[in-house]
Amino acid sequence: MAKTPETEHPVKACGYAARDTSGTLSPFKFSRRETGEKDVQFKVLYCGVCHSDLHMVKNEWGFTQYPIVPGHEIVGVVTGVGSKVEKFKVGDKVGVGCLVGSCRQCDQCSNDLENYCSKQILTYSAPYLDGTITYGGYSDIMVADEHFVVRWPENFPLDKGAPLLCAGITTYSPLKYFGLDKPGMKVGIVGLGGLGHVGVKFAKAFGTKVTVISTSLSKKKEAIEKLGADEFLVSKDPEQMQAAAGTLDGIIDTVSATHPLPPLLSLLKPHGKLILVGAPEKPLELPVFPLLVGRKIVAGSGIGGMKETQEMLDFAAEHNILPDVEIIPIDYINTAMERLLKSDVKYRFVIDVGKSLKSE
Amino acid sequence: MAKTPETEHPVKACGYAARDTSGTLSPFKFSRRETGEKDVQFKVLYCGVCHSDLHMVKNEWGFTQYPIVPGHEIVGVVTGVGSKVEKFKVGDKVGVGCLVGSCRQCDQCSNDLENYCSKQILTYSAPYLDGTITYGGYSDIMVADEHFVVRWPENFPLDKGAPLLCAGITTYSPLKYFGLDKPGMKVGIVGLGGLGHVGVKFAKAFGTKVTVISTSLSKKKEAIEKLGADEFLVSKDPEQMQAAAGTLDGIIDTVSATHPLPPLLSLLKPHGKLILVGAPEKPLELPVFPLLVGRKIVAGSGIGGMKETQEMLDFAAEHNILPDVEIIPIDYINTAMERLLKSDVKYRFVIDVGKSLKSE
Repeated sequence: MAKTPETEHPVKACGYAARDTSGTLSPFKFSRRETGEKDVQFKVLYCGVCHSDLHMVKNEWGFTQYPIVPGHEIVGVVTGVGSKVEKFKVGDKVGVGCLVGSCRQCDQCSNDLENYCSKQILTYSAPYLDGTITYGGYSDIMVADEHFVVRWPENFPLDKGAPLLCAGITTYSPLKYFGLDKPGMKVGIVGLGGLGHVGVKFAKAFGTKVTVISTSLSKKKEAIEKLGADEFLVSKDPEQMQAAAGTLDGIIDTVSATHPLPPLLSLLKPHGKLILVGAPEKPLELPVFPLLVGRKIVAGSGIGGMKETQEMLDFAAEHNILPDVEIIPIDYINTAMERLLKSDVKYRFVIDVGKSLKSE
Repeated sequence: MAKTPETEHPVKACGYAARDTSGTLSPFKFSRRETGEKDVQFKVLYCGVCHSDLHMVKNEWGFTQYPIVPGHEIVGVVTGVGSKVEKFKVGDKVGVGCLVGSCRQCDQCSNDLENYCSKQILTYSAPYLDGTITYGGYSDIMVADEHFVVRWPENFPLDKGAPLLCAGITTYSPLKYFGLDKPGMKVGIVGLGGLGHVGVKFAKAFGTKVTVISTSLSKKKEAIEKLGADEFLVSKDPEQMQAAAGTLDGIIDTVSATHPLPPLLSLLKPHGKLILVGAPEKPLELPVFPLLVGRKIVAGSGIGGMKETQEMLDFAAEHNILPDVEIIPIDYINTAMERLLKSDVKYRFVIDVGKSLKSE
């Protein structure tokens, strides 16, 4: 008899899974592998709800494997370690982000850039080394190779901090790599959602002047008063945009809907950088002339490597950078997904897995 | 009576001009300003024929001022210097490229990046500081502020070298700025025309491995045997392109026709850079996913600053880098333009202005 998710591994687990493109999540019994030599097993306490989870449960990117247990902003407390685990012990607070594996040998892996390894293994809905499909953090228990587990900083909130494991590193990494982390620089953040609001906090912590660029004036008060942004631009207001032309050193664009690039390119100084971290499904229109006359750059960036993810967490703890979250019980997840689709959340849902997921 | 091109300045000059969007060039009498304190006056000996000249005589970019005397790859011998000129004396060999002015005060100018100054003054068809329109190198005499004049290296051919002033710096500058000048790197050059063939030579001189990417197999022999390229890819051959996926550190894309970016992005390694130096009129389609998963960059670059242009020329002289040119008399220019439109030149026309332009 073919092994089922419930029987393929020895450790009983439960979570919430979607079974089809409706994306509706419901309780799901499955199993986790036993803790290998280099593995860390942990009880999941909190898991952030990323916009990717929404795309994936509905198979909008085309590579979902059902049943899917989403969740890649996972924090918890260690319940077991393998014989060769060096970094962690039972009782430690830990996190797992978007990755649970990579080849560990290629140029990317050798340079702590597992996130750009062509053999990276995503935390959910991907084939693991043993051939079974990975299940994410909407579940009671996780197990992962210690290389893909990060240490949670002392006295750093687990619930609010969880989204840093995806939304945090996704904005921190490009700010660093593209040199947009220098005090006094002017940095734009496009889109004030899960990613954008954390991007504002990191950019401010680096000492840059932050301009939030949004389609809606309604976010201005919050951007400036609550998140600490210095300026706010309504992207649909040509006068405002014209007045700010040529003023920004770089922009982190978190929008995953199709949107026009020319207004953003015009905000950049010469040699300025427009970094895309959202993933529009269709190609965007790229005018070449603005790139030539200003030696401007359009680039992409995807999460970060394990070393940088740890660095980001430690930096966040040191500077008290925490996402703004709404804590929910896991049986609220389908409503949360509907609200997320309407951007009706400030700014990230985090599931209180530890208190709300009942193992039967 | 309003001043005409022939009477607005004291120094008589003649050249070839286009009068309307037909782009047809014919003899033209005009005048040059007297040599100011900081000006260098020189007799034009050779002038390269850039693809921009073709766009401009037909007003394809929409900002041509008729009559237009094109030409921005200009070399000659100094015939006069102003009282405060420090770098040049009569008899010196000199060159002028795409720029004859900039604000000299902004951040870009202060950093030797006059080519990104928003007040830059193009060598032809642009309003100069005195309100008159600039005329280019299809003419017997030039005058320019010494800051925008480069010293021609000793014993370096004037005729073959002329195209370096635009085609050369346009490819040299991005190879340097984007760090694609390190020995052993793998660099792609897209398009084997005036820019591309010089790009191959610079990239080889930097010690990189060069792959020429072209729509036509017919250029393979020449690319490898004559220009010294290491590899040749036919961009329309999916098998070849697939086999080369993920192998290049960067690409200089010289194509100014609309063309697909995804095949080029796929050739790049993670963190690879696709640098556009051609100017397609319509926006290109930019798929975002390949940028995200490989942290890839699409950027533009436009010529270079004066300091870098001098550096490029000195480097070219040191490494004996010379464009492949076809020397023509100035009365052949309309035929040359027709041939240029069909890419029927290897790889740059250069007008022997000194011998073929008759001052009546």
